[in-house]
Amino acid sequence: MTVSSQQLANAVRALTMDAVQAANSGHPGMPMGMADAATVLFRDYLKFDPAQPKWADRDRFVLSAGHGSMLIYALLHLTGYERPTLDDIRNFRQLGSPCAGHPENFELAGIEATTGPLGSGFATAVGMAIAERHLNAVFGNDLVDHRTWVIAGDGCLMEGINHEAVGLAGHLKLGRLNVLWDDNRITIDGAVDLSSSENIIARYDASGWHTVACDGHDADDIARALGEAQADPRPSLIACRTIIGYGAPNKQGTSATHGSPLGADEIKAARQVLAWESPDFELPETIVAAWREIGARGAAARDDWEDRLANHSDRDEFTRRMDGRLPEGFSLDAYQADLIASPQKVATRRASELALGAINDLLPETIGGSADLTGSNNTKTKAQAPLTADNYGGRYIYYGIREFGMGCAMNGMALHGGVIPYGGTFLVFSDYCRPAIRLSALQQTRAIYVMTHDSIGLGEDGPTHQPIEHVMSLRLMPNLDVYRPADTIETAECWALALARQDGPSLLALSRQNLPQVRDDASENLSAKGAYRLRAATAARKVVLIASGSEVEIALTVADTLEAKGVGADVVSMPCWSRFDAQPRAYQDDVLPDVLPSEILRVSIEAGTTIGWERYTMSRGLRFGIDGFGASAPAPDLYRHFGLTPDIIAPQILAALEQNGS
Amino acid sequence: MTVSSQQLANAVRALTMDAVQAANSGHPGMPMGMADAATVLFRDYLKFDPAQPKWADRDRFVLSAGHGSMLIYALLHLTGYERPTLDDIRNFRQLGSPCAGHPENFELAGIEATTGPLGSGFATAVGMAIAERHLNAVFGNDLVDHRTWVIAGDGCLMEGINHEAVGLAGHLKLGRLNVLWDDNRITIDGAVDLSSSENIIARYDASGWHTVACDGHDADDIARALGEAQADPRPSLIACRTIIGYGAPNKQGTSATHGSPLGADEIKAARQVLAWESPDFELPETIVAAWREIGARGAAARDDWEDRLANHSDRDEFTRRMDGRLPEGFSLDAYQADLIASPQKVATRRASELALGAINDLLPETIGGSADLTGSNNTKTKAQAPLTADNYGGRYIYYGIREFGMGCAMNGMALHGGVIPYGGTFLVFSDYCRPAIRLSALQQTRAIYVMTHDSIGLGEDGPTHQPIEHVMSLRLMPNLDVYRPADTIETAECWALALARQDGPSLLALSRQNLPQVRDDASENLSAKGAYRLRAATAARKVVLIASGSEVEIALTVADTLEAKGVGADVVSMPCWSRFDAQPRAYQDDVLPDVLPSEILRVSIEAGTTIGWERYTMSRGLRFGIDGFGASAPAPDLYRHFGLTPDIIAPQILAALEQNGS
Repeated sequence: MTVSSQQLANAVRALTMDAVQAANSGHPGMPMGMADAATVLFRDYLKFDPAQPKWADRDRFVLSAGHGSMLIYALLHLTGYERPTLDDIRNFRQLGSPCAGHPENFELAGIEATTGPLGSGFATAVGMAIAERHLNAVFGNDLVDHRTWVIAGDGCLMEGINHEAVGLAGHLKLGRLNVLWDDNRITIDGAVDLSSSENIIARYDASGWHTVACDGHDADDIARALGEAQADPRPSLIACRTIIGYGAPNKQGTSATHGSPLGADEIKAARQVLAWESPDFELPETIVAAWREIGARGAAARDDWEDRLANHSDRDEFTRRMDGRLPEGFSLDAYQADLIASPQKVATRRASELALGAINDLLPETIGGSADLTGSNNTKTKAQAPLTADNYGGRYIYYGIREFGMGCAMNGMALHGGVIPYGGTFLVFSDYCRPAIRLSALQQTRAIYVMTHDSIGLGEDGPTHQPIEHVMSLRLMPNLDVYRPADTIETAECWALALARQDGPSLLALSRQNLPQVRDDASENLSAKGAYRLRAATAARKVVLIASGSEVEIALTVADTLEAKGVGADVVSMPCWSRFDAQPRAYQDDVLPDVLPSEILRVSIEAGTTIGWERYTMSRGLRFGIDGFGASAPAPDLYRHFGLTPDIIAPQILAALEQNGS
Repeated sequence: MTVSSQQLANAVRALTMDAVQAANSGHPGMPMGMADAATVLFRDYLKFDPAQPKWADRDRFVLSAGHGSMLIYALLHLTGYERPTLDDIRNFRQLGSPCAGHPENFELAGIEATTGPLGSGFATAVGMAIAERHLNAVFGNDLVDHRTWVIAGDGCLMEGINHEAVGLAGHLKLGRLNVLWDDNRITIDGAVDLSSSENIIARYDASGWHTVACDGHDADDIARALGEAQADPRPSLIACRTIIGYGAPNKQGTSATHGSPLGADEIKAARQVLAWESPDFELPETIVAAWREIGARGAAARDDWEDRLANHSDRDEFTRRMDGRLPEGFSLDAYQADLIASPQKVATRRASELALGAINDLLPETIGGSADLTGSNNTKTKAQAPLTADNYGGRYIYYGIREFGMGCAMNGMALHGGVIPYGGTFLVFSDYCRPAIRLSALQQTRAIYVMTHDSIGLGEDGPTHQPIEHVMSLRLMPNLDVYRPADTIETAECWALALARQDGPSLLALSRQNLPQVRDDASENLSAKGAYRLRAATAARKVVLIASGSEVEIALTVADTLEAKGVGADVVSMPCWSRFDAQPRAYQDDVLPDVLPSEILRVSIEAGTTIGWERYTMSRGLRFGIDGFGASAPAPDLYRHFGLTPDIIAPQILAALEQNGS
């Protein structure tokens, strides 16, 4: 007996209704509306193998409208992935279930990306499509030849990030990217035309996309549209005209189905409409069998691919890169040895460029870029040709003025695997891509943010361009390593740590202005400990100066002044809070002696907000920083203006010591 | 002698070249490229009066491409504004000069908006245009009848925010908004086509805009295009085809003119090309006179307007609103008295809605809205009809899924004056509009952010939707008051404070879940102090519990447990850090006694990051919070999971006391 597309889709609808009802929370409207389109996609187009969810050459599927998470949970279960089980789905949105409110890539092998923040999944998929074309250029069709599919809603398309993603994908002619737009004309507040009058198709046309429309509840029409999209060399937008909550007779077509359970009565009525007779969470065997057959469809292609890989001359390198392992023996030791031999006084953005020179020669998997600040972020090295529509093999992306799009694209590349993306902008514009950085952290992607012009040290551009709260606010973000290196050596160390880390993002805050090389030894990666004693007190220790980045130089001069007065002062360089907090207590206590402030005064110096530094200075320590907005002037004038020069700081420390002593 | 448009424009070019050269820093390319278009705008179209920069019915002009700040400084000086003086311009980008690297609205009366973060000025102008139409609907043509003009560059148009701004303006049919696009085909990294292949005109057409192109160096053609734009009932994009750095013979048309001084030789060459014979910073008298005449053009219209205002029945109300003063006697006392009489256990988002019910009846100047979460943010009250293209008199904006666009629009409305904007989204999506929030703080606008679903208390939606670091990261932002009220009374107090504040933004972090009313007295606005002793210890005080928002309830229960064991515990509710930090030291010491932790243990409880709380708990205090990402589950399960229930917290406090005592 043949199972119809409609029946297949109704299995998705039934699981959705039941799971949302059981959780008494969730979003039934989207999965029910897009069940037909998703069924056709999985049945006829998507290349996947539930037995090998991480098969490198699988198609990527991203549910950008992540609130409709039951759609993907149902599809993964029905096609035969090991997880989620039916029990997992029964526990939708409960503690411990991998079926979280929104899809989480770390919960289920079949989830390619964490989605929910609208528009970000779509933009992440752009990065996946870039990685695919790049690896195809490097390794050829035999190993890399797949597509990226997206389901996106009106919210994904209305968010600003969509403009950036569409622009980037259109410019790079990512024909392997196909987006199914759930054109249900409903948002949470009501009809889309309450807030938008846009001709979306025309906008996509304007950005070099192929567009096609279909009846999102007519399987044949969907299949036609997907076929056209697959055949077209441009990225495609497939407008699927749907009814939100399709099948719920009294609520469908309204925002009432969007984010609340349908209720027992409506579910009962929907079961009648859909001719779905199985009890809650039960699935007819024939339908399960048909779905499993769909799931089994990709095994042959995967087998063939495995054979091709086994015999491929690039097998080891391809596998290494897809595993995310750095090459055996990768090290920056030689580069650092040169620096020790010939110390350099350069901006840390320039130190980063120098380190990248070595890195990009040693690591073919890096793909750099900048949001239109290449010369300022110092992100491009000689090894890197531009990655363009004509040369996907290039390793440098001109992202344009698209910080958020860049961040999401980096996430997509990292999630795809096989490449290590890094990208630059000014640190103050981390605000523009903050949602992407958070998704890097949550998704545990190795995305590396190169954020230059990291304080008032950038000078004349003024308060709109001067980060004050940014470094600290980024330190608050879970699973993000924020580095603020002090010189060439620390910059290289931080780069090495960022590259070695496989389970999360790193962000480098780098100076515009030149900084002296404060390290004369690179035998150990001291930045790995987050903070370390850069210089020990000579006289009896009364002060510990803690600084990061460009203020380490200042701390050293302050120490000189204090020592000249017989006051012993350690200087602690602290490039990374999260790493220091992860050290053993004994190490922490050695670096920051845990004694009363009346005995040893702790002092922080950082050209940014002081809130937060109480963590290390203790309450009665001193904190030198900036708690208001910056100003426009040459950097040295600003450092004086904000009281961040040794001659202003040292006397205050001496005064505090005197007061404590009295 | 008639002064040609070209000569007028060359005065702008000369001042630009000289100022950037003197500062050895800045962006000459844009002002030189757009000098002709700006000259025609100021000469023939812009309604302004340098003698009265704050004339309410002036046209608003926003330099969205803020890096080209010398353009506006030159124009303001030439047309006769009191500031900047020629000396101010000589000190371009120096400490103390109002001619900052980027235009700052608080530095010069003629600067309508702080710009520089690309795309934000354009989006801010959308808000100005909304305010204009709204006030026109309320007060009529006699008092409000002006336009909003913008100069934007390719960066402004490529940023995601542009999509949101364009969509909102097109949807609301803001025909009074006219944007001059500096179509110079150059970005910092090089040609625009390095990163973009978009047909920008087609995109604007798709969003309901009128579009027109002109030769940006042909005054007659510019005038024609501006005339068409002014006549068209839709918002207009005027594509001005220009050459960046126009007049610098060897560098024009390249990104070399964008962000660096031209150099003495090139300036000399440009002076020849432009036939500009005056020495540095000097201006021919005839040209100054011609510019001053342009500046004098608006005085008559302003006089007429003053007459109309003087005789207008709405004079006092209009003046009050444009001055930003709340109505005499505005108070929420009656509303709060009702709450004291009948305490309510509701979510603070609902408490906010209740407060808004009173506020919106009393204050006709509020304009609410939400980024498509009206029912969740509880931002719409009965008094508010939607503000639409058909009814600009409405007071509620369906912003669509455009958080950043909403924030910028609110800034624009507040900068325009006459209205008090507030807008809602989920707190976690403060990340999406963080650049707008920062610009609210920097520009000192009374924009009020209503951010609901403020912790893991939102439950099942999971980590993508659960703010962890957000409240703390927003507290770091200078000049932003972040409120996290605990109940109905505090919510009303925070609203009153946000509305009363004229020099900066406020952000309310509100719960999704119900919270008991913890206050039984509303005779004094205790939230005004930022933190206060909600309940004093009964037994001898050994503990001070500090909590905010939904965790105040938990702190009270913890206190009960401790008191039952004979351990005295104060409960301090701390809705606003910045306000507490501004209190006199004596008050701070009374609320948080400044004694050694071995004597009184300070404990913070907040369902968010603990970093930062050392400020108030002191280093050896205890901090209960969440330093990783959230999870998907019902809220009570999550509070248990993350250890934030009284039965988990109280024993740890007792153990710490025992350890300290030993």
